[in-house]
Amino acid sequence: MQRPSNQLFDAYFFARDMAQVFSDEGRVQAMLDFEAALARAQARVGLIPQAAVAPIAAACQAGLYDFGALGEAIATAGNSAIPLVKALGRQIAATDAGAERYVHLGATSQDVMDSGLVLQLRSAWQLIDVDLQRLGDILATQAKRHAGTPLAGRTWLQQATPVTLGMKIAGWLGAITRHRQRLRELQPRLLCLQFGGASGTLAALGEQAMPVAEALAEELRLGLAEQPWHTHRDRLVEFGAVLGLIAGSLGKLGRDISLLMQTEAAEVFEPSAPGKGGSSTMPHKRNPVGAAVLIGTATRVPGLLSTLFSAMPQEHERSLGLWHAEWETLPEICRLVSGALQQALIVAEGLEVDPARMLSNLDLTRGLLLAEAVSIVLAQRLGRDTAHHLLEQCCQRAVAEQRHLRAVLGDEPQVTAQLSADELDHLLDPAHYLGQARTWVERAVAEHLAFT
Amino acid sequence: MQRPSNQLFDAYFFARDMAQVFSDEGRVQAMLDFEAALARAQARVGLIPQAAVAPIAAACQAGLYDFGALGEAIATAGNSAIPLVKALGRQIAATDAGAERYVHLGATSQDVMDSGLVLQLRSAWQLIDVDLQRLGDILATQAKRHAGTPLAGRTWLQQATPVTLGMKIAGWLGAITRHRQRLRELQPRLLCLQFGGASGTLAALGEQAMPVAEALAEELRLGLAEQPWHTHRDRLVEFGAVLGLIAGSLGKLGRDISLLMQTEAAEVFEPSAPGKGGSSTMPHKRNPVGAAVLIGTATRVPGLLSTLFSAMPQEHERSLGLWHAEWETLPEICRLVSGALQQALIVAEGLEVDPARMLSNLDLTRGLLLAEAVSIVLAQRLGRDTAHHLLEQCCQRAVAEQRHLRAVLGDEPQVTAQLSADELDHLLDPAHYLGQARTWVERAVAEHLAFT
Amino acid sequence: MQRPSNQLFDAYFFARDMAQVFSDEGRVQAMLDFEAALARAQARVGLIPQAAVAPIAAACQAGLYDFGALGEAIATAGNSAIPLVKALGRQIAATDAGAERYVHLGATSQDVMDSGLVLQLRSAWQLIDVDLQRLGDILATQAKRHAGTPLAGRTWLQQATPVTLGMKIAGWLGAITRHRQRLRELQPRLLCLQFGGASGTLAALGEQAMPVAEALAEELRLGLAEQPWHTHRDRLVEFGAVLGLIAGSLGKLGRDISLLMQTEAAEVFEPSAPGKGGSSTMPHKRNPVGAAVLIGTATRVPGLLSTLFSAMPQEHERSLGLWHAEWETLPEICRLVSGALQQALIVAEGLEVDPARMLSNLDLTRGLLLAEAVSIVLAQRLGRDTAHHLLEQCCQRAVAEQRHLRAVLGDEPQVTAQLSADELDHLLDPAHYLGQARTWVERAVAEHLAFT
Amino acid sequence: MQRPSNQLFDAYFFARDMAQVFSDEGRVQAMLDFEAALARAQARVGLIPQAAVAPIAAACQAGLYDFGALGEAIATAGNSAIPLVKALGRQIAATDAGAERYVHLGATSQDVMDSGLVLQLRSAWQLIDVDLQRLGDILATQAKRHAGTPLAGRTWLQQATPVTLGMKIAGWLGAITRHRQRLRELQPRLLCLQFGGASGTLAALGEQAMPVAEALAEELRLGLAEQPWHTHRDRLVEFGAVLGLIAGSLGKLGRDISLLMQTEAAEVFEPSAPGKGGSSTMPHKRNPVGAAVLIGTATRVPGLLSTLFSAMPQEHERSLGLWHAEWETLPEICRLVSGALQQALIVAEGLEVDPARMLSNLDLTRGLLLAEAVSIVLAQRLGRDTAHHLLEQCCQRAVAEQRHLRAVLGDEPQVTAQLSADELDHLLDPAHYLGQARTWVERAVAEHLAFT
Repeated sequence: MQRPSNQLFDAYFFARDMAQVFSDEGRVQAMLDFEAALARAQARVGLIPQAAVAPIAAACQAGLYDFGALGEAIATAGNSAIPLVKALGRQIAATDAGAERYVHLGATSQDVMDSGLVLQLRSAWQLIDVDLQRLGDILATQAKRHAGTPLAGRTWLQQATPVTLGMKIAGWLGAITRHRQRLRELQPRLLCLQFGGASGTLAALGEQAMPVAEALAEELRLGLAEQPWHTHRDRLVEFGAVLGLIAGSLGKLGRDISLLMQTEAAEVFEPSAPGKGGSSTMPHKRNPVGAAVLIGTATRVPGLLSTLFSAMPQEHERSLGLWHAEWETLPEICRLVSGALQQALIVAEGLEVDPARMLSNLDLTRGLLLAEAVSIVLAQRLGRDTAHHLLEQCCQRAVAEQRHLRAVLGDEPQVTAQLSADELDHLLDPAHYLGQARTWVERAVAEHLAFT
Repeated sequence: MQRPSNQLFDAYFFARDMAQVFSDEGRVQAMLDFEAALARAQARVGLIPQAAVAPIAAACQAGLYDFGALGEAIATAGNSAIPLVKALGRQIAATDAGAERYVHLGATSQDVMDSGLVLQLRSAWQLIDVDLQRLGDILATQAKRHAGTPLAGRTWLQQATPVTLGMKIAGWLGAITRHRQRLRELQPRLLCLQFGGASGTLAALGEQAMPVAEALAEELRLGLAEQPWHTHRDRLVEFGAVLGLIAGSLGKLGRDISLLMQTEAAEVFEPSAPGKGGSSTMPHKRNPVGAAVLIGTATRVPGLLSTLFSAMPQEHERSLGLWHAEWETLPEICRLVSGALQQALIVAEGLEVDPARMLSNLDLTRGLLLAEAVSIVLAQRLGRDTAHHLLEQCCQRAVAEQRHLRAVLGDEPQVTAQLSADELDHLLDPAHYLGQARTWVERAVAEHLAFT
Repeated sequence: MQRPSNQLFDAYFFARDMAQVFSDEGRVQAMLDFEAALARAQARVGLIPQAAVAPIAAACQAGLYDFGALGEAIATAGNSAIPLVKALGRQIAATDAGAERYVHLGATSQDVMDSGLVLQLRSAWQLIDVDLQRLGDILATQAKRHAGTPLAGRTWLQQATPVTLGMKIAGWLGAITRHRQRLRELQPRLLCLQFGGASGTLAALGEQAMPVAEALAEELRLGLAEQPWHTHRDRLVEFGAVLGLIAGSLGKLGRDISLLMQTEAAEVFEPSAPGKGGSSTMPHKRNPVGAAVLIGTATRVPGLLSTLFSAMPQEHERSLGLWHAEWETLPEICRLVSGALQQALIVAEGLEVDPARMLSNLDLTRGLLLAEAVSIVLAQRLGRDTAHHLLEQCCQRAVAEQRHLRAVLGDEPQVTAQLSADELDHLLDPAHYLGQARTWVERAVAEHLAFT
Repeated sequence: MQRPSNQLFDAYFFARDMAQVFSDEGRVQAMLDFEAALARAQARVGLIPQAAVAPIAAACQAGLYDFGALGEAIATAGNSAIPLVKALGRQIAATDAGAERYVHLGATSQDVMDSGLVLQLRSAWQLIDVDLQRLGDILATQAKRHAGTPLAGRTWLQQATPVTLGMKIAGWLGAITRHRQRLRELQPRLLCLQFGGASGTLAALGEQAMPVAEALAEELRLGLAEQPWHTHRDRLVEFGAVLGLIAGSLGKLGRDISLLMQTEAAEVFEPSAPGKGGSSTMPHKRNPVGAAVLIGTATRVPGLLSTLFSAMPQEHERSLGLWHAEWETLPEICRLVSGALQQALIVAEGLEVDPARMLSNLDLTRGLLLAEAVSIVLAQRLGRDTAHHLLEQCCQRAVAEQRHLRAVLGDEPQVTAQLSADELDHLLDPAHYLGQARTWVERAVAEHLAFT
């Protein structure tokens, strides 16, 4: 008996493979993987007969279970492991009555749920790592492609001195590289077995506790923590936090693009596709359908994360309520970030750029953006204070008379005494006032390439 | 093509009827209800032929649509209204080619989505209001039943002077009554039509704009806001916030119960049920399976709420990203609060109480909890300072000698000169030091009854 | 011994009068106001001698206390009431040894702190209410002033059909009016006395408990709740939530303005002032210094609010830790919202508007924004499908040939057969396609005026 | 003109040295340190005369500036750098008119503010690192001391099989060691210079841009990022997130202690101190004044963190509003975590332990906690199913007859046939059913010692 489904927005907001990892089937299979590995580990150390392994393993297939019935049983049991282990026992008993007694030995419900979760998070980690690497590759390519394309820098949403599109993209890239480093660093803390038994001491396994724990960790290719971590959730929350950082960086990418796509700016666009964000009555309109997901995810993840952090002070050896608060929250963060990455890949790869419009926007202030460039050169010839004062006057005149700064400067004898028309043209060309923009691209690309 | 389902915990965390309201079917039907009502309204004012209404209305049945295909189309369109209106058009055209052109006239996607949402929220409002009223009734009954049952007051998790279980329950009740008031007050702000057309001016409907808007609001039994509220989301967030207050109050109820259920306190219990929170290896154990949901919900909702508040500064006439961040967030809050109410009703109705244990726990400090009671009576006879000083000494002696305060007082001539053995027994009986506990119950019950 | 001060940004982010309410002095005075009123109330019902009131009241002046020493004592006591009451006792004793014993009778620390807080919140409520009313007045004036000023509607940050600046301002106004309603509605729930004694039963006051409580509530002009609410914090959190709604609406106002101020849009500006947001090297630049506060506040308050909601499940009769989490959080929300209001008042009053730029921006799409207007008129003459198809073709031609839609339409015989040049000019004039924009202004202003 | 101070709770919630780091003085000095270093760097590469360095450096003393006046100027300027640089210029000019022109060359306001912030965060990092190391040392000592002290394990707040206090403390220790690793790993990403000039290109410095940047980084002993990171805030937010993890772990420590201190448990206590958390009327009462801070901080930090994450999608080259939202938020997280560490150090060092009460609490269920231990031994002799069934019956009998399980087992011939009275006594002794508790202590201590 399934609950009414709620998936209308899943294809838009989530990557399919990540949704699969945290689906009912994915959850159940991960817990069953734990049970099968436990049987193998206990057989290896001689705690249970080798013959019990095969029937147990055979029953550890998610497809054999009725998720609707499980869901109803969870509502009574208060966790997903108790009803699953019961159903697993029945399934084994149906083929091998003797093997049933060897299932789940010495484990507690949270061992199953947490270890299953870690197996899912390993898959999630890999999906995200691959996507980040692909995104890094794409951004590196785009940054190099547009390394010399000038557009207005914008601070406080006001135009400032010019930058390049490549440098902007390299900024996005730099963050992606740092996120990959973070994921790499947290991996050994995250991918740890949970195995402690009733209160975390493994007492029920007596002398065989550590050998079983070690064999089990080996079977699942997970680390063995310094002790069970049932109420020490920093391992999980740290992963959530790095996903939150990724969401934030992708949100910045989405925000930049949605601003650049504005009708009034119209410099950079998400790739178009049939029916994508269009409007039949307004043919000029191109809604940033991908950026909406990037911004939406960056808006949703911080709240979800605060729940994870709030749920950390878990009581004693196992918590009620705070633990429960994690169950849907961390998976939702994984799903949302996977969906944002999916959109970022599309947007980054298909970025449409209008360099001509960038140039014309650079001229919206009639040359004022480049006043700094002229001032610096004049300072070397007239002294800093004189130069600064002279430029300030020319700028004010340009504003007051609604003329181009180039024209005002060309009419000003103190300026023309120092600078030829060609020199003035050169100084007022944004392409000649880009500073280290190209260096930033090179450095970001080099960091990306250095990270393998 | 549906995404992998993720519903394993739905029966535990959500009420089924609320899950239905925000299911794929519930969402689609609410949008179709808007379209059908729009056709009726436009026919009423003569904008479209009356004959177009029936074929449009006939097509406005959620069951006719493929939610999986819709989900895929949403990923391209960036909202759920565009693909639904397209599918609706095809559905109408299949039976009445002429009627198709009269669908969705003058409306924009967000009109459909928001008005549909409001219709769902009306259902959610009603479900929650009914549950709150039932919970109030149960708590009122329990508060009266236990109005004279003393237990230790606890401040900072330390025992303090006695209270009664009835007063504690009345405290929970008082909050429920306030929440019902809040829901009543916000209703006219929440249940408002969204209808503005492309930019919110209804320009496409010309002179007929207001008549259509009024008829449409009437058809849907919704209020007509002072203007379309596409980027003014306070109406929705206010509802979310009141749900958050409910979640917080239920979390307090759950926390109190989980603390009272501790093995060391063992005063009050969730109702038992076969298999509920039990453990075959630890027969004394009774996990607070319901309280876990109450605490879990109170931990999850604040983060979701912060997303809603964060998403308020929506740009211009329609937002990208911030609007998207609401789509799953407000429904999730509704679902979570419905599930917490479901558990609170079970817990409150079936509360198991152990008054004997309460009394024995009241004696854990060997009478020190009642020192204040003795001190007050002695003050009237010896003066306040003398009495206070005397009691302080007796208390310290009781602690140092690990004796009961009653015995120490009985041995102290300055005390026995003033108070007989019977008087001392009376003063050290928690049942005689309950202050206004019964008044608090009466006041809370009266407020509950006064609210209809 | 004061801690190092941290006030560098206070003048920018907070209103001074609100900072005063929640200053050390404001906090201490509010608690002393409670103590003085308690003495008056207890004298009124005859519990303490009338002669004790004057010396107690005389000592209840915040200026008499050393806040640094209090701060250090708080670190040991765990709350601010215990050390303050001790210091108060010493202060009274210095002038009237006999009166000291009559201070704080029957009250507990949280009674003092919470009631003091409520007194501060009453001041905060009033400051905010006054500012909201002033803001409403200003917005109403501005909405009427610009009721006929067209600018591009923007959805998803893309230009859509025209709106008016008045309608945009009226949207901001509508939210303000709703916030004033909310503040009015919650007032009786918020402004309630806290008075329960050790565990909330007022047992120490015996038969005089209710008379004292009633007299005290009267003295402080506060309501008397159905019972003490030490661990039922919905009253406070509700106020925080409405402040959060205000912050969100002001954030929307700030976002709209910062977008309109962009160099590429340049339609509406914060008022200029000497040195305000300017840049000597970039004379065209005008940083939205006020909008930054509006957006910053709307970004900070949701997180603070989530703390308040998270802190609701307080244990038993008095909480540790969750209560403490409120102490700085709710005041910070009040301060931040006061500062945002301060900036909103400046921005709204001094709004600089460039209607000419709005018109030229409306033409950025070369008439495409008005295609809908033409389509509707043609539909009446050619039938809906034909008209729609014809317009779609013309729009595509306009885009492809980079011509103005007016010119394309003027060249299209199917169009000119139906519409004269004058009619076409009329239809392509944004001022003639503003729908109900003026109605929205009227309705919002009427609601504002109706709310007194 | 300072704003009213608000510091009453600072000594309780913050460590003094951390409050100093983020005080007005600390903020201003850090920005001045940037300006002085910039002058030295520019002199080194020959951009400014060496003679200008001394007068600039001499003026870079926070004590020379009026923070109140600065605060007022910030409210107009919209950031703290513009007014500070102006004041700095005046200060330099007062002693050396010529040097003034060489201050702040090529830098933008956010360069100053962000680099100053990084210098403060370096101090904060160090304070926290030292405290974590000290806390680790103390916890390691305590874990070893109590490695053999049994108490009831508690899951879902219900007693479960025994654990040891040492293992519980080792769990806290393990988290602290992981946090130290995290701080170490993020350090190179966090401690980076901000230096980009107007739009981040350093264009104003021409060819000398990189030499100046490198010299400046060297002067300040900061890393040089791949490009300026004005709107890529992951470096800062990552630090905040790790502080959030620390807050969560300390909250868990505080929650455990507050639960163990309950009157009904009374097993472990915060150290007592004169006047600390006491109550004259309730001499048995000992409020967990330190745990309140630990829980309070763990409740406040998640909301502050969600603000930092929400503020990540900063626009273009420099943000308005989102950047502002960080200014007080990250410092507040640092302060709160410093205060929690301060309390944790006190609590951990002075932990008062009552092993006798732990033993008597272990007997509250009359031996049921150890049923598992008996069952396992019997299983080896009778077979698993028979043993399990037999034990289940005995447990139920013990519950029904309110007898101790030891007595029931001693009366059961099927049991006594297998187990002598001595064996039964042994099996029902919690000290013999502690599993790997000692191993967990050893592993956590070893990890602590291995981390230098």
